[in-house]
Amino acid sequence: MPSKTFSHPINITLHDIDAAGVMFFADYFRHAHDAYECFMAEIGFPLPQLIHQRTLLPLVHSEADFLLPVHHGDRLRIEIHLERIGTSSFTVGYQFLDTQAREVARIKTTHVLLHPGKRSPMGLPKTLLKSLDVYAVSTDG
Amino acid sequence: MPSKTFSHPINITLHDIDAAGVMFFADYFRHAHDAYECFMAEIGFPLPQLIHQRTLLPLVHSEADFLLPVHHGDRLRIEIHLERIGTSSFTVGYQFLDTQAREVARIKTTHVLLHPGKRSPMGLPKTLLKSLDVYAVSTDG
Amino acid sequence: MPSKTFSHPINITLHDIDAAGVMFFADYFRHAHDAYECFMAEIGFPLPQLIHQRTLLPLVHSEADFLLPVHHGDRLRIEIHLERIGTSSFTVGYQFLDTQAREVARIKTTHVLLHPGKRSPMGLPKTLLKSLDVYAVSTDG
Amino acid sequence: MPSKTFSHPINITLHDIDAAGVMFFADYFRHAHDAYECFMAEIGFPLPQLIHQRTLLPLVHSEADFLLPVHHGDRLRIEIHLERIGTSSFTVGYQFLDTQAREVARIKTTHVLLHPGKRSPMGLPKTLLKSLDVYAVSTDG
Repeated sequence: MPSKTFSHPINITLHDIDAAGVMFFADYFRHAHDAYECFMAEIGFPLPQLIHQRTLLPLVHSEADFLLPVHHGDRLRIEIHLERIGTSSFTVGYQFLDTQAREVARIKTTHVLLHPGKRSPMGLPKTLLKSLDVYAVSTDG
Repeated sequence: MPSKTFSHPINITLHDIDAAGVMFFADYFRHAHDAYECFMAEIGFPLPQLIHQRTLLPLVHSEADFLLPVHHGDRLRIEIHLERIGTSSFTVGYQFLDTQAREVARIKTTHVLLHPGKRSPMGLPKTLLKSLDVYAVSTDG
Repeated sequence: MPSKTFSHPINITLHDIDAAGVMFFADYFRHAHDAYECFMAEIGFPLPQLIHQRTLLPLVHSEADFLLPVHHGDRLRIEIHLERIGTSSFTVGYQFLDTQAREVARIKTTHVLLHPGKRSPMGLPKTLLKSLDVYAVSTDG
Repeated sequence: MPSKTFSHPINITLHDIDAAGVMFFADYFRHAHDAYECFMAEIGFPLPQLIHQRTLLPLVHSEADFLLPVHHGDRLRIEIHLERIGTSSFTVGYQFLDTQAREVARIKTTHVLLHPGKRSPMGLPKTLLKSLDVYAVSTDG
């Protein structure tokens, strides 16, 4: 169970829907990333500032399960918690929940901290580790 | 009548379509810009190279008429010609044509050349003017 | 001066920005349409319900002026008013304003009401006309 | 080793790039799906026709590894093969390769065939199984 959960509301709009009448799968990832940006700002690490400092946290892995179809006008919330916190990388989990709290999709994104100007990983700063840990799924859960 | 026309084929795919069952209007602009990038590469001014040199041609105006609905699986071509060539700006015209050569949409984008690192316009280089002119709509047309 | 203005806040996120370091022009149109959807829901005409009833209001024209560059992390608001209300069509105006109330972009979209299942225009219902009129730019303004 | 590989070329354009200067992760999924649409048309199952017949193959799972950064102007090809062919579902694999044949990303998408108008899976038709099998990764590979 997460100590703390970050919640991000989204409305599914006209362009999220594809020719099959449901949300296009790439748009789930876009919404998840918007939620991630809000989360990072909330915990004191806004992405525009990190990028400006050349502190890059590129995505190296992502996966998603699409459980129930999502339609135009649906109001969802994305709940964020930390799935894994390593020495130089971490994995964010996103649950997409509808107004009845049913899980309609779940996504993971793994981010690695890189040395500025390089492609090699470096250790996550203690302040970030501490901030992420507040949202960690407990290991005994 | 243009001296020369640049033609760019596109296929309308699943995600281009919105909840109303037709191409979402912002996606016409995305396709037009992809055509513009191909056109600029074709005439010797590839955007990645221009951006690398800090030669920026930001869009200052755009407009579009949506004439016929576009559906999933439609095969269109975008025909590009130059609507206007000024001293520091130019306007590109895009005709979206279906397989029966019916015009389904038309778009214009106006680009201004900026002084590197500034917001002030500068004169278009002669080599670019010459290249654009080949695709100009004739004034007596 | 509009009688009433609808205001829609947006945050500019990572994917809104393009390779030139500013918001990609098609993304302004996407944000404008999201604002339009919120506006239509606010005045009692939510798009998902209209589409479900086959009451379609397709976009037939759009235009935009891009006045100042928009960057990652910018917080804007889109202010909506009605530019024109006709018998079977209307034009929505969107002003993109930054936190200092500077206009960074302006967009217009023109929508036509179609007979269900046809491509021919029909008169806007009185209830919609009345609701739109509250946000109309005054003609003596 | 696949018996046969389907190859789909893509050019990375201005809007594919995000504020960190590399391709935004959701855009890999968009490009993969465009490649999937071309593949399905190639093997005789064009998506627009399937959707028209209410033969839906929704995505239930996707995952991706992002191995090397992708930049504006990069020319990639997406190679498609079948990772797994089940009774009512199949998993497509996509390798993103640069001009030097280096793998810059790999994606998987799993699709399930649904009974028309229902959420329950049904067996894949023999004609589709046969067509997919031509692109299957060999089990003894």
